[in-house]
Amino acid sequence: MRQLHRKDLWSWSVFDQARNLDFNSLAWIRADGNVLVDPLPISDHDLRHLEELGGAAWIVVTNSDHTRAAAELSLRFGAKLAGPAGERGQLPFACARWLSEGDELVPGLAAIELHGSKTPGELALVLEDTTLITGDLVRGQALGKLNLLPDAKLADRAAALASVRRLAALGQVEAVLVGDGWPIAHGGHALLRALVAELD
Amino acid sequence: MRQLHRKDLWSWSVFDQARNLDFNSLAWIRADGNVLVDPLPISDHDLRHLEELGGAAWIVVTNSDHTRAAAELSLRFGAKLAGPAGERGQLPFACARWLSEGDELVPGLAAIELHGSKTPGELALVLEDTTLITGDLVRGQALGKLNLLPDAKLADRAAALASVRRLAALGQVEAVLVGDGWPIAHGGHALLRALVAELD
Repeated sequence: MRQLHRKDLWSWSVFDQARNLDFNSLAWIRADGNVLVDPLPISDHDLRHLEELGGAAWIVVTNSDHTRAAAELSLRFGAKLAGPAGERGQLPFACARWLSEGDELVPGLAAIELHGSKTPGELALVLEDTTLITGDLVRGQALGKLNLLPDAKLADRAAALASVRRLAALGQVEAVLVGDGWPIAHGGHALLRALVAELD
Repeated sequence: MRQLHRKDLWSWSVFDQARNLDFNSLAWIRADGNVLVDPLPISDHDLRHLEELGGAAWIVVTNSDHTRAAAELSLRFGAKLAGPAGERGQLPFACARWLSEGDELVPGLAAIELHGSKTPGELALVLEDTTLITGDLVRGQALGKLNLLPDAKLADRAAALASVRRLAALGQVEAVLVGDGWPIAHGGHALLRALVAELD
């Protein structure tokens, strides 16, 4: 796996040819049990790496289009699954937790419910106030810049913009780890505000 | 290929399991002929993408450990090869240009000779003053941070540090596109200065 901006955060990716960007998965390594977000199929090498780091206690899926290898890795690690409360019934597996606005999955990892994206209950996650983790709505097609899911994919553009405005109001965000595209290590808050300004 | 911080810059990568980071290749798309830097073996998809963007007129190799797929792509595109003057005789192919300190391969792309790295004539490249392109000496093991090639690989640590100090003195550098690891879009100059401060 590739090391992110914190020593306890790692990612692995699959390049998507249709969009010319990486799809990303996240592993947060913690003493009380690792958390994976939107895990993709994983190479043998990265699987061994993840096993050496303790496997996974929780797997969070930010939206029903990001189930990817979640079920398979849940079985392998005995990890519990968590998904968006707004998409209960749309996931191909049962979750131990259905996350709504403000819910903490584990201490320090809080859910934000987004609206108007391509699925009804998409979650963003905030890790210790400073790292924002997004699924589909906010992405990084070009290095060092954030962009929005294309209009054609949005269920409700005005609602989606209101959700992005909420993310841009999180004043302590430094890093933005996007599900699709290039992650951001620094200046996340300013880049979210720039995204809002561009869309308004 | 993945879009970098400019619309005319693209990259493709191969994950290196030994180091848990991406090896990166660069394509600079320009009206007078595209330039590739340290090209890795390329997927059929990325090859088609690169062909649609015009193939390549020049291929630059920053050091003799980064020859990768340069010869093969040179044959495919009819591209001319360029390499470090300090490593003439160490590359497995003849170059049309051997680059020394200050040489411009094409307008806007200038070479800097580094010293003390693992090969004697490693080049860095500066694209229009604002984008620094590195081969091996300066790398990005963790997202949003620059680090140095491990001491064990340096031929002369003091000379290597002096070279890094020269890079850190390039006041207009915003982006740092590393050969190995995560690229930087913003704040490159400050990150290079932070690297020097950490090493001193």
